[in-house]
Amino acid sequence: MAIITLTTDFGEKDYFAGATRGAIYSELSDVTIVDISHSISPFNIPEAAYIIQNAYSSFPKGTIHIIGIDSEINPENKHIAIKLDDHYFICANNGIMSMICSEIAPEKIVEINIHDKISTNFPVLDVFVKVACHIARGGTLDVIGKSIPEIKPIKNIVPYVNDDKTQIMGSVIYIDNYGNVITNIKRNFFENIQKGRAYEIAARNYKFNKINQKYSDIVNFDIPENKRNDEGKRLVLFNSGNFLEIAIYKSNNETVGSAASLLGLGLMDTVSVKFIPDPINSDATELPHNIHKISDYE
Amino acid sequence: MAIITLTTDFGEKDYFAGATRGAIYSELSDVTIVDISHSISPFNIPEAAYIIQNAYSSFPKGTIHIIGIDSEINPENKHIAIKLDDHYFICANNGIMSMICSEIAPEKIVEINIHDKISTNFPVLDVFVKVACHIARGGTLDVIGKSIPEIKPIKNIVPYVNDDKTQIMGSVIYIDNYGNVITNIKRNFFENIQKGRAYEIAARNYKFNKINQKYSDIVNFDIPENKRNDEGKRLVLFNSGNFLEIAIYKSNNETVGSAASLLGLGLMDTVSVKFIPDPINSDATELPHNIHKISDYE
Amino acid sequence: MAIITLTTDFGEKDYFAGATRGAIYSELSDVTIVDISHSISPFNIPEAAYIIQNAYSSFPKGTIHIIGIDSEINPENKHIAIKLDDHYFICANNGIMSMICSEIAPEKIVEINIHDKISTNFPVLDVFVKVACHIARGGTLDVIGKSIPEIKPIKNIVPYVNDDKTQIMGSVIYIDNYGNVITNIKRNFFENIQKGRAYEIAARNYKFNKINQKYSDIVNFDIPENKRNDEGKRLVLFNSGNFLEIAIYKSNNETVGSAASLLGLGLMDTVSVKFIPDPINSDATELPHNIHKISDYE
Repeated sequence: MAIITLTTDFGEKDYFAGATRGAIYSELSDVTIVDISHSISPFNIPEAAYIIQNAYSSFPKGTIHIIGIDSEINPENKHIAIKLDDHYFICANNGIMSMICSEIAPEKIVEINIHDKISTNFPVLDVFVKVACHIARGGTLDVIGKSIPEIKPIKNIVPYVNDDKTQIMGSVIYIDNYGNVITNIKRNFFENIQKGRAYEIAARNYKFNKINQKYSDIVNFDIPENKRNDEGKRLVLFNSGNFLEIAIYKSNNETVGSAASLLGLGLMDTVSVKFIPDPINSDATELPHNIHKISDYE
Repeated sequence: MAIITLTTDFGEKDYFAGATRGAIYSELSDVTIVDISHSISPFNIPEAAYIIQNAYSSFPKGTIHIIGIDSEINPENKHIAIKLDDHYFICANNGIMSMICSEIAPEKIVEINIHDKISTNFPVLDVFVKVACHIARGGTLDVIGKSIPEIKPIKNIVPYVNDDKTQIMGSVIYIDNYGNVITNIKRNFFENIQKGRAYEIAARNYKFNKINQKYSDIVNFDIPENKRNDEGKRLVLFNSGNFLEIAIYKSNNETVGSAASLLGLGLMDTVSVKFIPDPINSDATELPHNIHKISDYE
Repeated sequence: MAIITLTTDFGEKDYFAGATRGAIYSELSDVTIVDISHSISPFNIPEAAYIIQNAYSSFPKGTIHIIGIDSEINPENKHIAIKLDDHYFICANNGIMSMICSEIAPEKIVEINIHDKISTNFPVLDVFVKVACHIARGGTLDVIGKSIPEIKPIKNIVPYVNDDKTQIMGSVIYIDNYGNVITNIKRNFFENIQKGRAYEIAARNYKFNKINQKYSDIVNFDIPENKRNDEGKRLVLFNSGNFLEIAIYKSNNETVGSAASLLGLGLMDTVSVKFIPDPINSDATELPHNIHKISDYE
């Protein structure tokens, strides 16, 4: 049975998501529809790119992903369908897919041309559902569009690295449900630059020189539970999507606060990483005065 | 496989929607349950009427729609089941169905009488689910209730028109996820009164004399993208449900603002349309001084 | 077809719930996934306990419930699977199941030991889904863990009763979508202490000496509808989960207000019940001056 997922900025209240599900069932009785998210911020393409990138690969090969963000067709915003990593993606050519495509080359990209002459202001329902059901029935991309060589990119997907590779300048791309702050610095990217060096991660006035494996790594379980005070402590880790994340232990905006609220971090804010020359293997005879060794901290 | 949809004011957090889904699966193992919305404002009947009207017809014929808003039974609030347009609707007789029924005559309406003597404060679970599963198994409405001739109406579903048909007085019935303002003026209603005349749509201090086909119609694509400033522009169109909508291009309350926030429009506010006599074909020798021709605007 | 439910604090926006659904479909093509709630407050164990207790029993026997709240494994927070009332529950051993287990004895509890050496910060995806699919395929609990005799309790699940059983001291454990205030006083508990006596329920400065059967019991239907003023009236009833609830008729925080907003009640606030000695059958010759008879109120 085909699986079709939905990722949109429709919200939880409006009829848009419900009508979309209904339209799919009207075309295909034997299909599984799965919501990834309908709560993307309106027209927020980087947010949608982050969500779909981290959700899609958990699904079986062959899954069809409808992404309904900023999908009204116009001369600068065409509809596309992409086959990549044995998954199918249907969306507007507005940059949503550029985060995934920066890591995995698409097998095929087509610009959809099944639109009739009547313009629509509900393209997810009127176009994307038809394309998704066509693919679900085993149809090929060639039937619904013409091949194009590449998709529209979005900016700031990849962090900046300076020439001598001593610093990464990343930025905040997402704040999650717990208020954790997600940067665009991925584990592979970080480790390729790091090459084993010590580091200092800076976000606003806060500095970190350890990346934890998991949230509770900051807890000292040797201290009795009622004498500990770990909730609300800040830490850094790579999240389950392998993005560098600044977090608060048991983060909750309503209670102990969150990285977003406590550290004052918002979307697009800078998070930087400075790499510290290894004093033995490098030419550097001393550390800059404002860079501390790990032993200074812990 | 039968499809049962859910439209309620249960919210996303409580156990009510989950328990309702569980109760359906306990009665029927082979059924598709589809959420239309659980985020209707509590007890807001016009909102529910708007959502279900715009969602239901995308579903296949034979779909069974449970609407759980203000559904506690009492002497003035009976439970009904309706067959209309080859869909089934189960709800309280509190006006929710009057928006749909004003356009399409119901085939059959029954007042449900399967209630046992024990009163319930979870009628969706205890009554609506049983009725829905009865219909899903192929049961008739006659078995679960007695026919009644008509349903309870709600007010202000249809806009007001003055006697000489020069003006429509509508009102705001819904604010969508983007902050777009939806009026009760439908395309057919508008065009039947308009008869080709020019018009001026007024909402608070703002006037419009063009209805766009889609949101991006207001963008001038001849100007380079980085020199345009279209986000945040206001426009009017008929939305995908054919309701007259006052919108903001790429509307987002958190960023560029929305029609609701920028124009100060809320539920029940008035939106009026004045029709302008055609100077050639009518007796009017001149336009009223406060009515502008389209050419004055654009 | 197996049913797997999801109850988490993932929120509606993030990729976590979508990825979890995808991972289940990747393991099992023939499964029904049902969301109970993803909007539990972050790390709020009592809230999750309340939601799952009230939702689970509507599902068919054999249903598998994944509860993803505070589920990161650490020396004090192990993963468990429980068979209880012919349902399966998979969660962290953090007290979530203690509300259900206080009423129904578990058939079997195992501490999950399928974890490989790599630590994960997405245990719902990496551990709970695997366990759930193992059970869905007919696997036993013995294969995925070792039996343990009991689970970790949480405090304040059960209200306090004084020695002479004249008073119950309960507390607010949940505020629902309508703003109704739910206490930890259950119907059976109440009636076992009450033994037919009159009572006075006190919450802040408000007192109640009647428990209604349903919300609209407070409406006098003999008065014409347009002369009534019932919306916003306060009342007490046992809700559909049999918890004592302080409610507002047609409660809505945005319009008439709610019990939470109007009475100023929040989580953990005290709600007490005083039982009034029966003047005929008891030694008490008169009521305390501050206790009114039911006839004084109504």
